[in-house]
Amino acid sequence: MNGKAVANILGKVLLAEAALLLFPLAAAAYFREPVLPFLGPILLLLLLGGALAALKPASPQLYAREGFVCVGLSWVLMSAFGALPFVFSGDIPRYTDALFETVSGFTTTGASILNDPERLGRGCMFWRLFTHWIGGMGVLVFIAAILPVSGDHYIHIMRAEVPGPTVSKLVPRIRKTARILYLIYFGLTLLECLLLLLGRMSFYEALLHSFATAGTGGFSTRAESIGAFHSAYIEMVIAVFMLLFGCNFNLFYLILLGQGAAAARSEELRVYLGVIAVSVVLIAADIAGRCGGALSALRYSFFQVMTVLSTTGFSTCDFDAWPEFSRWILVLLMFIGGCAGSTGGGMKVSRIIILMKSYFAELKRMIHPTQVKRIWFEHRPVGDQTVMSVQVFFFVYLLAAGLGVLALTPDGKDLSTNLTASIACISNVGPGLSLVGPTGNYAFFSVPSKLVLCFEMLLGRLEIFPMLFLLTPSVWKKR
Amino acid sequence: MNGKAVANILGKVLLAEAALLLFPLAAAAYFREPVLPFLGPILLLLLLGGALAALKPASPQLYAREGFVCVGLSWVLMSAFGALPFVFSGDIPRYTDALFETVSGFTTTGASILNDPERLGRGCMFWRLFTHWIGGMGVLVFIAAILPVSGDHYIHIMRAEVPGPTVSKLVPRIRKTARILYLIYFGLTLLECLLLLLGRMSFYEALLHSFATAGTGGFSTRAESIGAFHSAYIEMVIAVFMLLFGCNFNLFYLILLGQGAAAARSEELRVYLGVIAVSVVLIAADIAGRCGGALSALRYSFFQVMTVLSTTGFSTCDFDAWPEFSRWILVLLMFIGGCAGSTGGGMKVSRIIILMKSYFAELKRMIHPTQVKRIWFEHRPVGDQTVMSVQVFFFVYLLAAGLGVLALTPDGKDLSTNLTASIACISNVGPGLSLVGPTGNYAFFSVPSKLVLCFEMLLGRLEIFPMLFLLTPSVWKKR
Repeated sequence: MNGKAVANILGKVLLAEAALLLFPLAAAAYFREPVLPFLGPILLLLLLGGALAALKPASPQLYAREGFVCVGLSWVLMSAFGALPFVFSGDIPRYTDALFETVSGFTTTGASILNDPERLGRGCMFWRLFTHWIGGMGVLVFIAAILPVSGDHYIHIMRAEVPGPTVSKLVPRIRKTARILYLIYFGLTLLECLLLLLGRMSFYEALLHSFATAGTGGFSTRAESIGAFHSAYIEMVIAVFMLLFGCNFNLFYLILLGQGAAAARSEELRVYLGVIAVSVVLIAADIAGRCGGALSALRYSFFQVMTVLSTTGFSTCDFDAWPEFSRWILVLLMFIGGCAGSTGGGMKVSRIIILMKSYFAELKRMIHPTQVKRIWFEHRPVGDQTVMSVQVFFFVYLLAAGLGVLALTPDGKDLSTNLTASIACISNVGPGLSLVGPTGNYAFFSVPSKLVLCFEMLLGRLEIFPMLFLLTPSVWKKR
Repeated sequence: MNGKAVANILGKVLLAEAALLLFPLAAAAYFREPVLPFLGPILLLLLLGGALAALKPASPQLYAREGFVCVGLSWVLMSAFGALPFVFSGDIPRYTDALFETVSGFTTTGASILNDPERLGRGCMFWRLFTHWIGGMGVLVFIAAILPVSGDHYIHIMRAEVPGPTVSKLVPRIRKTARILYLIYFGLTLLECLLLLLGRMSFYEALLHSFATAGTGGFSTRAESIGAFHSAYIEMVIAVFMLLFGCNFNLFYLILLGQGAAAARSEELRVYLGVIAVSVVLIAADIAGRCGGALSALRYSFFQVMTVLSTTGFSTCDFDAWPEFSRWILVLLMFIGGCAGSTGGGMKVSRIIILMKSYFAELKRMIHPTQVKRIWFEHRPVGDQTVMSVQVFFFVYLLAAGLGVLALTPDGKDLSTNLTASIACISNVGPGLSLVGPTGNYAFFSVPSKLVLCFEMLLGRLEIFPMLFLLTPSVWKKR
């Protein structure tokens, strides 16, 4: 383990967080709220981050395991410090609650322990929704975009932080890739904000909800989430942007390069849109009777499918009261999640495609045992090792979700609550069903349960391995 | 598709079923009940089976796909005809209900639609529990044991009917293997029956419960299942035999050969026993408060862990009323199931071991990307293809369980009922939680839901592929 190199990067992460905290500090100052709850953590981060960043490693070499450890530790530390403003301001007095809210923010889950979010100061509210935006793209990618990082070693960090089975390098240079990703991210966020302003949202709320959509997070300034605005226009703008932020960002880059046709050939995009279409129609048909007509049913259904599939977690109605058929479709969608290379969580559409294809390959192999059947994805053959990794991911993901449920049971809540809380957290969706449904929240869980859910959210956002590496003793051994 | 060869084997299966129906017919005659409900189906089976068996294939060659199709069709036909005595006797007047009960019997699931099983005639009750015994080892293996079958072609059929990731041939000759398996099966059943007689069970009930234990089925002559006997001795005898019938039968063969030490080295056995020990202790600790002491808690816990892990499905108490922690452990155990080559259902312990090992191999590969890491199981390296098959199995199994839940939702029951009904049927356990818990049954489901559950039971018993092959058009094409 190249400890100094890891510490150096962690230092940069903490410094970056200090810089990012200047935004909620400015918001607090603008709304004439106390700025000390932000100033304190900023100073702390500057001190600690400065000290760590001053460590100069003998070699900048970062191997795979250092990459994973870096990413895992960065997210844990960012969350630990990011929780402080909530505590210092008194908005969320208990530290574990503040930590839960911050982990939920950074991991773009959107599960909340707040019974009444509207009680929050505006500075804290800004920070709460801003964490979604930061977490959506990833802090380490952000650092890669703005700081001169030591070249190709950084690819392991990108791999660990960017969702999906493989990172396809957009362009040969890692820094340029990170910049392009952030530019697209920034541009889309801005566009959504403008469109929300046209829907007569205030600038403050338009900006914050754009942050939350861009990161596919799901926190809202309102207790009733997007439903509070009673505007079909706002709902549709947000639903469409949830759809966009659930797409692989490579596609936007292709479109920017004028290669829209190539983007349209993407298998993952087509399956993603197909899943959306089928789910929207099935749910709309199921709820039409209770929603006052087909059009209204389509509106609720489209919003809800997008909010769950993109793993955002906004709501416009109490979908927990929908029929079992629609409720279970939503649970299945939670597992699927967004596309690889999007800000969405879940298992990712591309993994589901590879799993389905490996199933068909197995069927064919059983009929013709002697034939070797390669799996193709996105018009390229997929290596056996990638298929294996995807399958292992599927197993560990479900195992973690299943053991997560077990860890929640001592609280004595019902199966439906425990099951969907675990799935909604590991898939970074946020709301589940029953007690953690759209009208409920996560406040009632015990401290151990909240910590389990925090771990699940980080597992999901970082796609399992960085967090598990932190718990694997052999990773820490000297090379 | 070698249609005539398949038809010939199906004919033999129907003739075998006719022969097996002589036993309940004899029971009915002995108890002076009408024998016509059995005689009718026997004649029908003789006619149809005789006609099919008379077809002489040009070549006896059976390829893998014919093997799968044979097994899938055999089980569907056996169930379709096996349901007739229940209908003809008037004990289960509706055909879909009778079919559900028969599929549940043959697949050794033990899910019942009977509100009061004690109402059944003794001939029908004999047939009901006898189907567990037939289904536990498999009818095609039975045919292999008694009829001269055309040698190695039959291995594909054994592969499709015997549970587990691979069929290890005990001995080079397929017929000898089948005979050894049946001898062990017969011997253990007899031994259990004797021990139950010592516990003052009537011969009729001792024999029938031995059938149900041997097949890890779970039907009982009593509405209260094993709890009705109020005997710790009977409970423990049955629990130990559930443990034995959940073991790989190869181990018993090794012990018969005097190679007990080799059997004790089995990794699968050790993990199986480890899972049992850990689960029993955890559940006993969880329920000790409400069971009147540690000993009583261990008694209930051991019985319940064995009934779920071996996928039998007897009950001695209302475990649905246990705390959430114990309930969820039971759900997780349902997925695991017995060992490969046992009569138990579920995913099988060996598959879970291979999945866990492929996860650790992946962890290692991520730390040292250049090293090739082979997976070892039972002191032998496992081929990549086997690992891949196990992973595909895991995916399809869970996908089928998840879609099964969706198919049950239109009935409007709660999530806990639908989820555990689907898992309990695909894993061939029988009882689930909530409405399908130990005090409930499957009678309330609609006809479509019952058919979905029948399909899931067959999927689980035949380990997915034979049933899916029946639905794959390309399998039916001419070669």
